[in-house]
Amino acid sequence: MKQERHVGRHDPTEGTARLEAFSDGVMAIVITLLVFTIEIPSGEADLGAFLRSQWPSYVAFVTAFLTLGVWWVNHHELFRLIQRTTHGFLLVNVLFLMSVALLPIPTQLVARYWGTDGETVALVAFGAVAVFAALMWNAIWFFALKRDLLLPGLGAERIRSFTRRTLMGAPTFLIGMILAVVSAPASLAFYLIVVLFYMLPSRPAPGG
Amino acid sequence: MKQERHVGRHDPTEGTARLEAFSDGVMAIVITLLVFTIEIPSGEADLGAFLRSQWPSYVAFVTAFLTLGVWWVNHHELFRLIQRTTHGFLLVNVLFLMSVALLPIPTQLVARYWGTDGETVALVAFGAVAVFAALMWNAIWFFALKRDLLLPGLGAERIRSFTRRTLMGAPTFLIGMILAVVSAPASLAFYLIVVLFYMLPSRPAPGG
Amino acid sequence: MKQERHVGRHDPTEGTARLEAFSDGVMAIVITLLVFTIEIPSGEADLGAFLRSQWPSYVAFVTAFLTLGVWWVNHHELFRLIQRTTHGFLLVNVLFLMSVALLPIPTQLVARYWGTDGETVALVAFGAVAVFAALMWNAIWFFALKRDLLLPGLGAERIRSFTRRTLMGAPTFLIGMILAVVSAPASLAFYLIVVLFYMLPSRPAPGG
Amino acid sequence: MKQERHVGRHDPTEGTARLEAFSDGVMAIVITLLVFTIEIPSGEADLGAFLRSQWPSYVAFVTAFLTLGVWWVNHHELFRLIQRTTHGFLLVNVLFLMSVALLPIPTQLVARYWGTDGETVALVAFGAVAVFAALMWNAIWFFALKRDLLLPGLGAERIRSFTRRTLMGAPTFLIGMILAVVSAPASLAFYLIVVLFYMLPSRPAPGG
Repeated sequence: MKQERHVGRHDPTEGTARLEAFSDGVMAIVITLLVFTIEIPSGEADLGAFLRSQWPSYVAFVTAFLTLGVWWVNHHELFRLIQRTTHGFLLVNVLFLMSVALLPIPTQLVARYWGTDGETVALVAFGAVAVFAALMWNAIWFFALKRDLLLPGLGAERIRSFTRRTLMGAPTFLIGMILAVVSAPASLAFYLIVVLFYMLPSRPAPGG
Repeated sequence: MKQERHVGRHDPTEGTARLEAFSDGVMAIVITLLVFTIEIPSGEADLGAFLRSQWPSYVAFVTAFLTLGVWWVNHHELFRLIQRTTHGFLLVNVLFLMSVALLPIPTQLVARYWGTDGETVALVAFGAVAVFAALMWNAIWFFALKRDLLLPGLGAERIRSFTRRTLMGAPTFLIGMILAVVSAPASLAFYLIVVLFYMLPSRPAPGG
Repeated sequence: MKQERHVGRHDPTEGTARLEAFSDGVMAIVITLLVFTIEIPSGEADLGAFLRSQWPSYVAFVTAFLTLGVWWVNHHELFRLIQRTTHGFLLVNVLFLMSVALLPIPTQLVARYWGTDGETVALVAFGAVAVFAALMWNAIWFFALKRDLLLPGLGAERIRSFTRRTLMGAPTFLIGMILAVVSAPASLAFYLIVVLFYMLPSRPAPGG
Repeated sequence: MKQERHVGRHDPTEGTARLEAFSDGVMAIVITLLVFTIEIPSGEADLGAFLRSQWPSYVAFVTAFLTLGVWWVNHHELFRLIQRTTHGFLLVNVLFLMSVALLPIPTQLVARYWGTDGETVALVAFGAVAVFAALMWNAIWFFALKRDLLLPGLGAERIRSFTRRTLMGAPTFLIGMILAVVSAPASLAFYLIVVLFYMLPSRPAPGG
C-alpha cells in the first residue's frame, strides 16, 4: 500500500499499513460499543416518556462518539506523515489503543449516574480516561519525532504546530475533570464544547 | 491503494483508503450487532414454540440488516466516485457513522415492544434514526459535490441522478414514521418493502 | 489493490477490495462473538467443577468457530477467482453475511439447552442457519458464474469442481438437522466431524 | 498490496493480505472485548469506593490487553516474513485466532473470582488459554518453515532466533499456571511481568 512496504519487506519493523488497519479496527469497535451507553428498556408502560427521560445518555453518547471520532481523524492525519514503524512504536500505539478502549466505561457511568451522587466520579473518570489517551497520543507523536519515523521534508513550522496541538489535549481534559467537582452539567457541557470546537472548519490549516 | 495516495502523501487530508476502512469497520460491527435483536432464551420449557413466537424480532432483524446492507452498498458505490477527502469531510462521515451506529437501538425496541403500546414509539424511533442517517448521507454527498472531492469527468446527468436518489431517503423514512402512528404492521411492512425495492435488480443504471 | 480497481474506477460497481474488507469485518466479528457461547459465571462455590460441567458449550463453540473459519477460508479462496462485482452481487454477498451473522444464535441455544428437551430444536436451528448460509453461498457462486464475474481462463474442469463442492453444503447440513431429531449427540458430532473433514489436508487440489 | 498477489492470482491459496486483514479484525475485536472485564455498576451509593475496590479487574484488563497487544505485534512482524499462504496455513491461523478469541473468558474469571476460592482456577484457565495460543503460534511458525512459505534469503541465524523465541511462549505461561496453585498474586504478577518484559526496548534485535 505504501512504497516502503516493498522496499523494506525484510525488515519486520517497517511499514504502517497493518498498524493503521489494526488501529482502525479497534477504534471502529470502540466507537460502535459506545451505543451500549443507551439503555434498551423492556416492559416500560410509557416507552416514549422513558426514552425522553434518557437524554443524559444521549448527550454522553454524542460527546464520547464525537471525541473518539476526532481522535480517529487525528490518528488518520498523523499517520499520513509517518513513514515507518519500529517494534517500540507498535507498542506505544497499543498503549494508545488501550486508553481508547476504556472510553465506553466512563461514558456508561456518566449515563447511569447522572443526577445522583456518583455523577462527579463518573465525569472525573471520563476526564481521566481522556487525559490518559491524550498522554498516550503525546507519546506517539514524540516517539515518532525522536526516532525519526516521520516523512522527510515536513518543515520545522509544521512540526512545531503539530507539537503545540498535541500538548493541548491533556490540560484541556484536566479542566473538564476539575469542572466535574464544581458542577456536573458544566463538566459535561465542557467536554461536548471541546469536541465541537475541534470539529469547527476554521481550524489552523497546517499540521492536519 | 489509490493513485493520489502516493501523489499527495504530504497533504494529510488527501486520500480515502482509511476513511473507507474505518467506515467498513463501523458498518460491519453495527450490522453484526443487529443479531442481538434476537433474544436468546434460557430455560424455556418449549423452545420451539418460543422461537416461533419471536417472529417480530426476525422481521425487525431482517429489515434493519438489509437497510444497513443497502447503506453499505451505497457508501461503497459513492466512494468509488470520490477522489480525495478533507478534514471536514472526514468529520461529516463520522456523523454519518454515528447515525448508523444508533440503528440497533430502535431495531431492538421494535422487537421488544411489538404487540404492546410501545410499538408506535419504537417504529417512530426506527424511522427517526433512518431519517437522521439519510440526512447525514445527504450531507456527505453535497459536501463532496461543493468541495469538489469527486473524480473529474463524471458528467452532469450522472451527478443529477445521484442527487435525486440521495434526496429520496429522508422523505421515504418520514412516511414510515407517519405510518407508525396509523398502524404498526403497516409501518414495519413499509420499511421492509422500501429496502427490498432498493435491492431490486431493475434499478436505474447510472449513478450507482 | 487489484489492477481493475484503477482501470474501472469510473464504474462504481467494479472491484472487490471493499466487498472483501467488509466481509472480513463481519466474519471476524461474528466468529469472535461466538465466544459468548461460553457462559462466564460469578459466585460459583466450585469454579473448577462448574467449568468442567460446561463441556457442551466448548464443543458448540469449537464446532461453530471452525465452521465459520472454513467458510471464511472458502470466501477468501473464491474471491481470489473473482474479478469484479456488480450492484446485485454486492447484495447477494450481504445476504450471505446475514446468514453468517445468525450463527451465534443457534450456537448459544445448543450450549444452553444441551441435556434438556430443547436440544433438538437448538440443533435443528443450527443446521437451518447453516443450510441458509450454504444456499446463499451457492447464490454467490452461481451469480458470479452467470454474470461472468470470474477471472478469465479458469478452465471448465476447475469450475465444475467448484460447483460440485458448492452444492454439497446444503444437503450436508440437512443431514445434521435430520440427525438432531434422532439423537442430539449424533447431530452435534456430525456437525463437528463435517468441519474437521473440510479441514483435512487431503482435500482435492483444484478449485481451492 | 503485495507483489505476489498479482503474480499468483490464479492460484487461490497464494497471498497473505486477507489473512492479515481477517486476523487484524479478530484480534482488534478480542482486544476491545477485554474491556468488559471491567464491571459497569449501577446504583452504587459510593461510586468512587466501588471503582477503587475493582483494582483486580484493572490489573487483569491491563495484563490481558498488553498480552494480546504483544501477540498482535508478533503476528504483524512474523507475517512480514511470510510470502504466501496455503489452504492448510489459513486453517492453522484460524486455530490460532480461536485460541486468541478465548482470552476474554479467563480474564473475566480472574476479575470476578479474585479474593475467592475460585481465583486459582481462574488464573490456571488464563494460563491454559495462553499456552494454547502459544502452541498454535508455534504451529504457525513451524508450518511456515516446513512448507517453505517464508521469504527467501532470511538467513539461518534469524530463523533460529525466531524459533528460539517462539518455543519460549508455552513453557513461560506454564510457569504462570503452576504459580497460580501456589499463590494467586504471584501468578497474576508473573503474567504481567512477562508481558512488560516482552515490551522492553532492549530486546534482541534480530528476528523481530
